[in-house]
Amino acid sequence: QRPCSAAAVFTRNQVVAAPVIIDRETLKKDRRQICAVIANSGNANACTGQSGLENARRMQQLTAEALGCHTQQVLVLSTGVIGVPLPMSKIAQGIAAAANGLQPDYGSMAAQAIMTTDTYPKHMAVRVELTDGTVTIGGIAKGSGMIHPDMATLLGVFTTDAAVEPGLLDRLLRTAVNQSFNRISIDGDTSTNDTVLLLANSSSQIHLSNQQDIDQFQLALNAICADMAKTIVRDGEGATKFVEIKVVGAPDDQSAHVIAATVATSPLVKTAFAGSDANWGRILAAAGRSGIAFDQHQVSLSIGVTDVTQLQIVTQGTPTAYQEADAAAIFNEPEFKILLDCGAGPGKATMWTSDLSHEYVTINADYRT
Amino acid sequence: QRPCSAAAVFTRNQVVAAPVIIDRETLKKDRRQICAVIANSGNANACTGQSGLENARRMQQLTAEALGCHTQQVLVLSTGVIGVPLPMSKIAQGIAAAANGLQPDYGSMAAQAIMTTDTYPKHMAVRVELTDGTVTIGGIAKGSGMIHPDMATLLGVFTTDAAVEPGLLDRLLRTAVNQSFNRISIDGDTSTNDTVLLLANSSSQIHLSNQQDIDQFQLALNAICADMAKTIVRDGEGATKFVEIKVVGAPDDQSAHVIAATVATSPLVKTAFAGSDANWGRILAAAGRSGIAFDQHQVSLSIGVTDVTQLQIVTQGTPTAYQEADAAAIFNEPEFKILLDCGAGPGKATMWTSDLSHEYVTINADYRT
Repeated sequence: QRPCSAAAVFTRNQVVAAPVIIDRETLKKDRRQICAVIANSGNANACTGQSGLENARRMQQLTAEALGCHTQQVLVLSTGVIGVPLPMSKIAQGIAAAANGLQPDYGSMAAQAIMTTDTYPKHMAVRVELTDGTVTIGGIAKGSGMIHPDMATLLGVFTTDAAVEPGLLDRLLRTAVNQSFNRISIDGDTSTNDTVLLLANSSSQIHLSNQQDIDQFQLALNAICADMAKTIVRDGEGATKFVEIKVVGAPDDQSAHVIAATVATSPLVKTAFAGSDANWGRILAAAGRSGIAFDQHQVSLSIGVTDVTQLQIVTQGTPTAYQEADAAAIFNEPEFKILLDCGAGPGKATMWTSDLSHEYVTINADYRT
Repeated sequence: QRPCSAAAVFTRNQVVAAPVIIDRETLKKDRRQICAVIANSGNANACTGQSGLENARRMQQLTAEALGCHTQQVLVLSTGVIGVPLPMSKIAQGIAAAANGLQPDYGSMAAQAIMTTDTYPKHMAVRVELTDGTVTIGGIAKGSGMIHPDMATLLGVFTTDAAVEPGLLDRLLRTAVNQSFNRISIDGDTSTNDTVLLLANSSSQIHLSNQQDIDQFQLALNAICADMAKTIVRDGEGATKFVEIKVVGAPDDQSAHVIAATVATSPLVKTAFAGSDANWGRILAAAGRSGIAFDQHQVSLSIGVTDVTQLQIVTQGTPTAYQEADAAAIFNEPEFKILLDCGAGPGKATMWTSDLSHEYVTINADYRT
């Protein structure tokens, strides 16, 4: 409809897909005039060399021509198999078809179109009351394998009708991503294509003009990003469990995040989740190999469905006289929480993760064929 | 039979089992008088608090009494479930039974007795020709889950009739472990109990007296440790593949090891192995998230069954015109090799790993019940 302020967070993986390279270049030149995002699923356009870069540029160009804007006003997203050339004639047909008759309410179709192994489309929106009126933030995203963020994750496109200058938009997005997409892990594998975009087209004519409005907008953006991130974990490849792992008592917040991420990616922890087996020793063992210093005799562990301290399992490094049936009942729930207190400082962090199930192996043992 | 020089390498996991704490203390006091190693499987005696330490000491004591030696001459090993008190009356009966009528050829029975999810016992021996005669190195070990070494791994006990003073024995063992047990990963989870012991009782009356003999002995020890480590990967939980991952062209050897370990522990890489799917993009994506700097446009990848350069897949960051059927044929083999050249320096490292199969999930989803 109109040029947008744009902010983006990309994968920290050093091996990056062609569209990530192209988008970084595009936003470096001008991040005040973005008009369109073109995305394809089924092919990541990663590890495709020089011709991959040319194909990503061609996607920009075809989209710009179809919409009557400039090439530099288009961002590109790809997700799917790595190392295979894009089928450009199919892509060209798709761009023509998508550009033909665009409607404001086609967001849910876009959410459907970018799915790979996702089992349902992910789209949501929030309204934010500001001093001068109400603005909206909407978003679409896709998961569900190769999900372990490192600054950014997966594909997510958020839009708002608020007026926000690019520098502020960038800070708002980074803050929200750090508290949402960077807190989830499905399999510990960081994708080559992870991208989260936030576009603001100012069509509401409402400016984020004072700190109170900025704070309100940040809260709303945090909320929609966190909800979207959790939705992606719930629809993780083969996921049958949604588990919150909260680490407190680490030397600092970053250390707490390292411990939480080590637990959240441990195959033994995640297969125990899959089996509803409250094998908590694996949680302590994973924390112990995280590389963060703590005294095992100061460690406490509790679990719960609604309340993280519902059932105390370990106190000061020693198992309590808890009942196995109580622990099993919690691990048998589709969603539960784990609280690990390392007793080594004020640091805390939370991760959201899924289990490692047979279905994950089935999906990924033969993804390409 | 007679007091041994002893060397040990333990897990680097900060959360360590009671027997690891006891063995460290014991060896610190005197590493020239070890007479016995008592081991149990089924229970790790880890995360068991003060009573766990007392139980490990009690195992030392009962063994010393049964064999007529001093408590400080006994080392203790445990493997199995974490966080459950040892059933001490059963342990006491087992110690009495094992000590009763010990025979020199009972090593294979010990190898059988320490198995947990191993599907077969692991024991081997080598003879080494030295200046003054022939000495023997024998060993038993067990794997097969929670295997991702960090200085040491799993349980392994090696013995020799050579005469070696403890300082030298320690250096010999550390060198061998770094080239063997520290090169394997089954699931990326480092155990709380990993211990490799080397005991030398000098019954051959042959001393490692010159550098040539030391080198010969080192070669033999390296060989038996490497064979044992590979055997453990082949019998990894649910393993249907044995894959060698060789990384060259990294900034340095340590960086190469980090990249190789990241590839070897990637769930997406390992499920592709399980599915015989030559989805090599996942290998590059895993290397890219390892944290080691390299230029993706300088990366080359080749695979093979006997020769690592049998099939070139990627050159200078771009896929070659290889035939998918040729790649699939290699990944379809039970053993194959991967060579990743990062084009960023002289560093190189090799890891041996297995696949992530349905059977791994089955074994670990319900290990305790």
